[in-house]
Amino acid sequence: MQHRYQILRPDWVVTVNSDFEVLQDFSVVVEDNQILSLVSDDEIADLPFYSEAEIFSLPGCALTPGLINSHTHASMSLFRGIADDLPLMEWLSDHIWPAEAKWVSPEFVIDGFKLAAAEMIRSGTTCLNDMYFFPDEVAACAQQIGIRSVVGLIVLDFPSIWAQNADEYLHKALAVHDEIREYSLVSSAFAPHAPYTVSDEPLRQIAMYSNELDVPVHIHVHETAAEVAEAQQKNGLRPLHRLDQLNLLNSNLIAVHMTELDQFEIERIAEVGVNVVHCPESNLKLGSGICPVANLLENGVNLCLGTDGAASNDDLDLFGEMRTAALLAKGSSANASACKVRQVIEMATINAARALGMADRIGSIEPGKCADLIAINLNSLNTQPLYDPVAQIVYAASSRQVSHVWIDGVIQLQDYELCHLDSQEIIARARSWGQKIKNRS
Amino acid sequence: MQHRYQILRPDWVVTVNSDFEVLQDFSVVVEDNQILSLVSDDEIADLPFYSEAEIFSLPGCALTPGLINSHTHASMSLFRGIADDLPLMEWLSDHIWPAEAKWVSPEFVIDGFKLAAAEMIRSGTTCLNDMYFFPDEVAACAQQIGIRSVVGLIVLDFPSIWAQNADEYLHKALAVHDEIREYSLVSSAFAPHAPYTVSDEPLRQIAMYSNELDVPVHIHVHETAAEVAEAQQKNGLRPLHRLDQLNLLNSNLIAVHMTELDQFEIERIAEVGVNVVHCPESNLKLGSGICPVANLLENGVNLCLGTDGAASNDDLDLFGEMRTAALLAKGSSANASACKVRQVIEMATINAARALGMADRIGSIEPGKCADLIAINLNSLNTQPLYDPVAQIVYAASSRQVSHVWIDGVIQLQDYELCHLDSQEIIARARSWGQKIKNRS
Repeated sequence: MQHRYQILRPDWVVTVNSDFEVLQDFSVVVEDNQILSLVSDDEIADLPFYSEAEIFSLPGCALTPGLINSHTHASMSLFRGIADDLPLMEWLSDHIWPAEAKWVSPEFVIDGFKLAAAEMIRSGTTCLNDMYFFPDEVAACAQQIGIRSVVGLIVLDFPSIWAQNADEYLHKALAVHDEIREYSLVSSAFAPHAPYTVSDEPLRQIAMYSNELDVPVHIHVHETAAEVAEAQQKNGLRPLHRLDQLNLLNSNLIAVHMTELDQFEIERIAEVGVNVVHCPESNLKLGSGICPVANLLENGVNLCLGTDGAASNDDLDLFGEMRTAALLAKGSSANASACKVRQVIEMATINAARALGMADRIGSIEPGKCADLIAINLNSLNTQPLYDPVAQIVYAASSRQVSHVWIDGVIQLQDYELCHLDSQEIIARARSWGQKIKNRS
Repeated sequence: MQHRYQILRPDWVVTVNSDFEVLQDFSVVVEDNQILSLVSDDEIADLPFYSEAEIFSLPGCALTPGLINSHTHASMSLFRGIADDLPLMEWLSDHIWPAEAKWVSPEFVIDGFKLAAAEMIRSGTTCLNDMYFFPDEVAACAQQIGIRSVVGLIVLDFPSIWAQNADEYLHKALAVHDEIREYSLVSSAFAPHAPYTVSDEPLRQIAMYSNELDVPVHIHVHETAAEVAEAQQKNGLRPLHRLDQLNLLNSNLIAVHMTELDQFEIERIAEVGVNVVHCPESNLKLGSGICPVANLLENGVNLCLGTDGAASNDDLDLFGEMRTAALLAKGSSANASACKVRQVIEMATINAARALGMADRIGSIEPGKCADLIAINLNSLNTQPLYDPVAQIVYAASSRQVSHVWIDGVIQLQDYELCHLDSQEIIARARSWGQKIKNRS
């Protein structure tokens, strides 16, 4: 078979390898869907396939691994801005859950996912860890669009449009898991919604399946102090302690939010390798609490970043999330040296790959990995002058400076334009949903 | 004299008047440099000068007052990213002050100001409250560029390239104040750097001049807990108490940062009308503390927003600052209803106008005010669907969606392009400074 070569020629390659090397005057060579090599500019013309390769000249650009959104509800982008300035439980009970009960359907999920995927690709995200209804529809849509995704196999105790009870949710979870095995870009994770919405028996089964199949478990945990207090009153246990008893605290667990943690819990999750997803903007906006990022980093916890759904953020922009994470960690710990630029870039790339069990395939620019890559053009008023490209990416750049995106070797954004998605059509459908929902809710 | 008319036709006019009216199907009519009227779309063609007016069709756009950056050191944009992940005093003493001693000159100040002005106009800022060396140069440059500015008449106890001692600073302050009286777009404020860098006698004189001339006093106050503790040890007084004794606590005071405030102080500044400038991103980045925004708003304090200098932010983007302010107020007070979208828009517009003594001229879209206006295009993936344009501006929009900017009736940004500033030339000069500073510092 004939190979296809692309040669990417940025000013800097931010490898996010284990030494966090930032290379100048290097090109990244992509063979088919994989990174073949990093070659110094002096030697690039000597490559045997140089004349047939497609060359991308990226002056002023930093090339980084594609960003990974470790927690989102992509299809909820259609609810973006539906209710603001409200606390979590009021926002959920009075606005989000009723709107979901009324509007969520396969059509809604697909249109919402496309809006989210377009926004994410446009802003440099190449992989998402999703949790929502109709994961089968989401998986098919993601594969078709070409955005790398882990779909959450949602499990709840109570009925929804997707299933009637925990048994049915679990049954469908396993069916979807099997159904999408052959997809090249999509895999799955068990997604019990939260300790307060899923009872012991389904959680125990999920722990067993997760262990047998080596599939991650994606769950909201310790999102607010109230959640922890109510659980203690109800079960006599903090939710993390209960999950520990149910055999869920291990390196397959992707624990989202985690604003309420005592020192014992932090040491315990570090010890067993639980992955934590920090969603700073959603946590701030809902007044949920602040994840102790500085402490978690000091204890060596594998920390990732998520936007959460657009309804509580209200964008799906990991550049904003990186910046907010870095600033908030410093501000909330009164330590300006906490959460340095390298750490926050790792949270949005290699740490996330590790949490998803994909560190051998994505999360850094290294030979043999999939070509999930983004170019960030730093030739902008707000990123000049430039003393350090990595600091500039975290503290000054806008996601609008992402000029090119490749996922699995396929170019998805070129010169700031989506290559395979029709923005105008996606926006028109989103607007039509917005009008329907606004008029009738 | 022949008048010049412009008619701006957005989808929404976010007036920021006292009722915070958001008008649909209205046009804003600009006569010369002023807002003449707001006219419903049905009646617009009946205006006598309609045929000679320049019409700006702005579909999908919200028109808002130009944003006001209430605290910045514009020229420091040339130090953007020079040192990161360091606490305030180390950052200042080991990096910023030595770099300033080595590099600051009239040429530096002008090139830095132009970079900042271009970035600010590009991101919807039409007025800035600046504090830096060579305010005479800054004033002339701002007037020439056409960006509304209040230049800070810097005062320090110690020598700098601008002056040798407090007497000379004060002398130069008054000279610059007189020199720029005739400028249409630029005015001045006394700018004693901070309580810990300016002694009682010059502060007393500034209080007197400020009162006589009705000129604002722009000062960093209570930026960190350490500043307050050291002052208590040195003077036996908290800095705000000392400023009160020196007759500085009144509605001419623009007190920047204010992260450390007790309830007595909050009530006192509310009572006497002190204006507070919140710089959330700079405070977070330097680990300085968190301004108690929710409490200040509850107490009716006039609260404004600043980016601070680009060296500690690292951008000059008030969209980011509005969003961070809204999120941080909720997160730090554990109250998702704190700092609502209306309040944060007011902080970046009318409240700032009030602090600068310009509420009769700028800060809202009302007949008779100067035409400082921005159009924000909400037809973007990340701002769809659209349930509420104001919430979308605060929580979802990027400053890159600012399509048009007028300052004093002059169009400064049209279809995302700067009209009168040469970005490429400004970036080239910034890059040249960056290389010089990087190689020799």
